[in-house]
Amino acid sequence: MTAPIAIRRLNAADPDFARHLDHLLSWESVSDEAVNQRVLDIIQAVRERGDAAVVEFTQRFDGVQATSMADLILPRERLELALTRITAEQRKALETAAARVRSYHEKQKQDSWTYTEADGTVLGQQVTPLDRAGLYVPGGKASYPSSVLMNAIPAKVAGVAEVVMVVPTPRGEINEIVLAAACVAGVDRVFTIGGAQAVAALAYGTESVPQVDKIVGPGNIYVATAKRHVFGQVGIDMIAGPSEILVVCDGGTDPDWIAMDLFSQAEHDEDAQAILVSPDAAFLDKVAASIDKLLPTMERAEIIRTSLQNRGALILVADQAQACQVANRIAPEHLELSVADPQAWLPHIRHAGAIFMGRYTAEALGDYCAGPNHVLPTSGTARFSSPLGVYDFQKRSSIIFCSADGASELGKTASVLARGESLTAHARSAEYRIASNKGQGE
Amino acid sequence: MTAPIAIRRLNAADPDFARHLDHLLSWESVSDEAVNQRVLDIIQAVRERGDAAVVEFTQRFDGVQATSMADLILPRERLELALTRITAEQRKALETAAARVRSYHEKQKQDSWTYTEADGTVLGQQVTPLDRAGLYVPGGKASYPSSVLMNAIPAKVAGVAEVVMVVPTPRGEINEIVLAAACVAGVDRVFTIGGAQAVAALAYGTESVPQVDKIVGPGNIYVATAKRHVFGQVGIDMIAGPSEILVVCDGGTDPDWIAMDLFSQAEHDEDAQAILVSPDAAFLDKVAASIDKLLPTMERAEIIRTSLQNRGALILVADQAQACQVANRIAPEHLELSVADPQAWLPHIRHAGAIFMGRYTAEALGDYCAGPNHVLPTSGTARFSSPLGVYDFQKRSSIIFCSADGASELGKTASVLARGESLTAHARSAEYRIASNKGQGE
Repeated sequence: MTAPIAIRRLNAADPDFARHLDHLLSWESVSDEAVNQRVLDIIQAVRERGDAAVVEFTQRFDGVQATSMADLILPRERLELALTRITAEQRKALETAAARVRSYHEKQKQDSWTYTEADGTVLGQQVTPLDRAGLYVPGGKASYPSSVLMNAIPAKVAGVAEVVMVVPTPRGEINEIVLAAACVAGVDRVFTIGGAQAVAALAYGTESVPQVDKIVGPGNIYVATAKRHVFGQVGIDMIAGPSEILVVCDGGTDPDWIAMDLFSQAEHDEDAQAILVSPDAAFLDKVAASIDKLLPTMERAEIIRTSLQNRGALILVADQAQACQVANRIAPEHLELSVADPQAWLPHIRHAGAIFMGRYTAEALGDYCAGPNHVLPTSGTARFSSPLGVYDFQKRSSIIFCSADGASELGKTASVLARGESLTAHARSAEYRIASNKGQGE
Repeated sequence: MTAPIAIRRLNAADPDFARHLDHLLSWESVSDEAVNQRVLDIIQAVRERGDAAVVEFTQRFDGVQATSMADLILPRERLELALTRITAEQRKALETAAARVRSYHEKQKQDSWTYTEADGTVLGQQVTPLDRAGLYVPGGKASYPSSVLMNAIPAKVAGVAEVVMVVPTPRGEINEIVLAAACVAGVDRVFTIGGAQAVAALAYGTESVPQVDKIVGPGNIYVATAKRHVFGQVGIDMIAGPSEILVVCDGGTDPDWIAMDLFSQAEHDEDAQAILVSPDAAFLDKVAASIDKLLPTMERAEIIRTSLQNRGALILVADQAQACQVANRIAPEHLELSVADPQAWLPHIRHAGAIFMGRYTAEALGDYCAGPNHVLPTSGTARFSSPLGVYDFQKRSSIIFCSADGASELGKTASVLARGESLTAHARSAEYRIASNKGQGE
């Protein structure tokens, strides 16, 4: 028998509610100067000494007995072998999930477009895939096969010619399900390297590791710091904060279900955040009772307890409108609308990474296999960013093809504006294309 | 009479060409530790003391005699006044450009989408605008009205409710065309503040300056450094490097036109880069002669000379295929295809910010009024990023609405994968939704 969890209770009617909520949500990743300097040194070494530096760091940090990069490369055949080493049930689950994720992401593909104006001028955008993407996969206990699917499949759907994965194997430990997932997702090459050295190798290239155009995937503080530093040299996805869920419930869902949904977020780590909002005070009590009842049965009970006590909350609101206000203020990574008519709520939700609608849509279904991506904006960044998607592996080039008549007209406007900015080469370049001036041209 | 420009000549047939090209393109913005620390101090001060800190920094850095933030706010009426203070020709040019930019960007708007599966499960994405965007506009000589249009109009087209602009007024100097452009573009509020303090105010909010969700727009090294630091707290656009153009010409365009197109890039600043590629060696000589002939007639001759000598080049290639290879290696911000049949080239161009097609399409037309955005990825980042667009002011939320049957099926797959990751709360949350287990649920 364990002690009840002291989970924070808030009431939106409290005059201090906004301040309490701000405090609850406050999170800032500490940028440790020592970590920063070590990462900069590692990046510099990889840029200067390539493979040799990567091998040294891998020996030192991962305890791997590699003598050259050749020992740190897994060919595609090794991934196929992994697929035979997992259980038939696991293989089927991976393939089912991959098929659903692929099918959903196919709908995100963006096409080139153009239109032609009356004078023959053509405008538009050409959409093309990145040439090569790098996928970081953590080693050890945070090594999730589902993340391999979620990061690699959008890249392949976008048409990225080569997806290169890096995954450290601390003390030689290989996760067969991760390799099987890489096989199913269509990963082209795997290097068993990790940390800042793997990020640096992908960003700048070495003799063996090809330079990529964008690096995606989660990692520890060294990986996150390295990604920040190489941003600009390559694209990066986002710098993820702790995972969070906001469950909004009208009181009509089984409280055990809601408790377990909160647990599924809290079990990630002690910093994860799980919040329940309801207009039904008695229901909040029921969920609290379910939490106390179910917690002792959980394998990760201590992580869940710490997470819920430090960062969790049960929030009482007046009504649906106030629940939506709280949701929009939080801009949660995961928003569960466990209510009778979630479609009626949807137009009022402005900010959320993913919206799980109705009593049956547990976040866990979306984490693995519903189809949408589980890489989502955290820490309120859903105010301005989106789930990882095919669009992250495509980019656009503007297309401008002026007819002679079009250029002549545009040249007049450009000339006035350029001279207003004192950019006379711009003005004269435009003026060459004005019909009456054409004697100066061709 | 000035001395001829010593502009670099490269030949793609040279065995050392790749190395020479790498050297020509190499550019790394230096992260100055002193700048970094000053910026961090300014951000900290603004977070702690709000308006008071912003006013102090504005007095100190901009030499403005403000006593409170009230002195640093321009209401919408002041923008309308500016519109009456510029010439009729300038007003017409601004309005023409704005209408074309708006019309082009309307075509970039993305809509929400969903689809329903056989078992009733609904999947999709809800697309919503950002609530509030911040637009940084430099003061002094780099204060460009065209940039106001290019940054503000996509935000308004996306449906951003409030666009807040900041523009410093060094020694009180106000650029009326910039304010007029803000009026035409639909900017809602203007604060006459700048530097890292303006970025911090937009990112964190003060008593007077509202917190925004994303900050866009160019700025000096303090502004760029501040944007890097607040990234995550708010969204940012990109950290721009020096502007660049790659002109590819088949030899059939008037060499004076090409010389002026190169000048229009080089006149921006000494670090700007202008490169010409042609399979016609005699044409390269003609352009070199045009450069020498026209340079003395240019107002910004010294900037152009320095830029072309330090970072410019005339590159001889064997044929169209090799020209495309060079273009894709450079991934230029601006690519001018000054050739007879640019449509035939387009499928071979994989990386470019904007593609200016045909002999009439001077880059300057696109800079001001063709319609596409002039905020483009620099320094090779077109390999993985896109022009600023409406999509930068919209974000997506995944939508997942499982039917009872759908959840039951998905629950089985999720359960297997979650247990493979030792995340048993995830597994149990999913298992509650499997039909045969439902006795445990509702």
